[in-house]
Amino acid sequence: MNDFVTTLKTKTEEISEIVLKRLPKSDSFSAVIFEAMEYSVANGGKRLRPLMVKEVYEALGGKKEKEEKLLEPFMAAIEMIHSSSLVHDDLPEMDNDLLRRGKPTTHAVYGQAMGVLTGDGLLNLAYETAASALEAVADNHDDLKNAARALKILGTKAGIYGMIGGQVVDVVNTGKPLSDEEIDFIYIGKTAALIESSLMMGAVLAGADTDTVDKFERIGRCTGIAFQIRDDILDETSTDEELGKPVHSDEENNKTTYVTIHGLDESQKKVDELTKEAENLLTGLGLEDSFLAGLLKFLVTRTK
Amino acid sequence: MNDFVTTLKTKTEEISEIVLKRLPKSDSFSAVIFEAMEYSVANGGKRLRPLMVKEVYEALGGKKEKEEKLLEPFMAAIEMIHSSSLVHDDLPEMDNDLLRRGKPTTHAVYGQAMGVLTGDGLLNLAYETAASALEAVADNHDDLKNAARALKILGTKAGIYGMIGGQVVDVVNTGKPLSDEEIDFIYIGKTAALIESSLMMGAVLAGADTDTVDKFERIGRCTGIAFQIRDDILDETSTDEELGKPVHSDEENNKTTYVTIHGLDESQKKVDELTKEAENLLTGLGLEDSFLAGLLKFLVTRTK
Repeated sequence: MNDFVTTLKTKTEEISEIVLKRLPKSDSFSAVIFEAMEYSVANGGKRLRPLMVKEVYEALGGKKEKEEKLLEPFMAAIEMIHSSSLVHDDLPEMDNDLLRRGKPTTHAVYGQAMGVLTGDGLLNLAYETAASALEAVADNHDDLKNAARALKILGTKAGIYGMIGGQVVDVVNTGKPLSDEEIDFIYIGKTAALIESSLMMGAVLAGADTDTVDKFERIGRCTGIAFQIRDDILDETSTDEELGKPVHSDEENNKTTYVTIHGLDESQKKVDELTKEAENLLTGLGLEDSFLAGLLKFLVTRTK
Repeated sequence: MNDFVTTLKTKTEEISEIVLKRLPKSDSFSAVIFEAMEYSVANGGKRLRPLMVKEVYEALGGKKEKEEKLLEPFMAAIEMIHSSSLVHDDLPEMDNDLLRRGKPTTHAVYGQAMGVLTGDGLLNLAYETAASALEAVADNHDDLKNAARALKILGTKAGIYGMIGGQVVDVVNTGKPLSDEEIDFIYIGKTAALIESSLMMGAVLAGADTDTVDKFERIGRCTGIAFQIRDDILDETSTDEELGKPVHSDEENNKTTYVTIHGLDESQKKVDELTKEAENLLTGLGLEDSFLAGLLKFLVTRTK
């Protein structure tokens, strides 16, 4: 496990570089948004989503020489969309957070109006960046078709049928008790959708067939939900020191989670079931010993 | 001119239908955002941007049978981006507007958090919709290349180098006097960029060469700036009754405009110059008698 963590740390640094080099600089009148976008993305975590794009691509035999122009723009794009959603989530009218990973949030530094515009800028830049991949491979029909498929997946999973849809259900129900079905809907949208998208894009860009892409969608769904339930469990069972952030926050905020509905034992059982399903699918694809398999396992068994 | 206005009205209704039919319905937990997006787009004006996409496409001989799957998604996409920007512009932290075209703004009806999410949803849906065009023509390499070029243009003109960039400079300078160069930057971003994009996408989708696309970019730039200066002039010279909205708002808000810097005569001269340049370019393309030429003329000579 220690080896895994060391490798993950190295990979995270590599991915951060790939993502950050695709954030442009500017000395024009609008320079402040370029700065605010970089500030927002630089304060990243493990870069899990772009890492997943790359791991699947490589595991399925995607060509090394196509990574820079075909793969990397989509890695940057998914991280930009993720960052965009965090910037908007932190706004006063949403979660009203002034700190994220110990640093002032984007709107806390640049003001509320710039918080809105920075999120918009990052969301739009994600698609500009993805479009640059299409442009770069335009003369190869197969590559262009794969890039277009990846773009469609990115859009669908980020939008009203995915991440934004989950966010809506979370926001409009703030302070209200939630049904089991609503919790599912929120976890699938807010957490699983971008993980599904990352795995699927990696597969599509490597030229995988529909059946394989569908399997990665399911692996992403299982991993995303299990990851979120694990989060709920840790909020209940961990200490502030272990977790590095305040625990029992769900209870204090009267927040309905999988754990408040089903209890700890049932919740851990659900995590185990989902993990098993994802592992079986990976084994079916011959990827049981891959770094990807280790990564997904790590996400659902973490203790902080 | 009366004939022109009648034709424009008919065309606006046709375009509205094309755009609105690409806004999905939903009875899922997230139904409210589908409703809010439709509310935001339904309160549209003349649908100038999608109309321009179509007029250029047809003027350059774009094929009728490709309109539904190749052209219409981009028409819908540009209007979704325009609507998205209006929803976010109206937010309390931005212009804080409660009315638009006589109806309550999106955040006034659905709340501030939903205002943020509805704008995000529409911006993202624009790219999902454009991606659906790429999917629909994927087997034809030339069509796919053209659709990818259109997507790249859409992204570039909407983002930090275009519309959002202009919005940033406007927002961060609220209440401050602006230089001539800053005014130019704002007009190009906030008004011209999406007009440039509309004309360029129509050309690209019809299969036009780079030189023609560049000419349409310049026509869009001239028309956009002239349109905005004309707006400033009307704010100064019109009456509330003529304009259908409060005049002298720029003066009362201490807002720097082209007119406050250069005066009325100089401003009208600038409008005339830009109009002439756009007309000459259209004549060079053999389009001096097109509906498009009439439309661009109408925009810069309007009295309300």
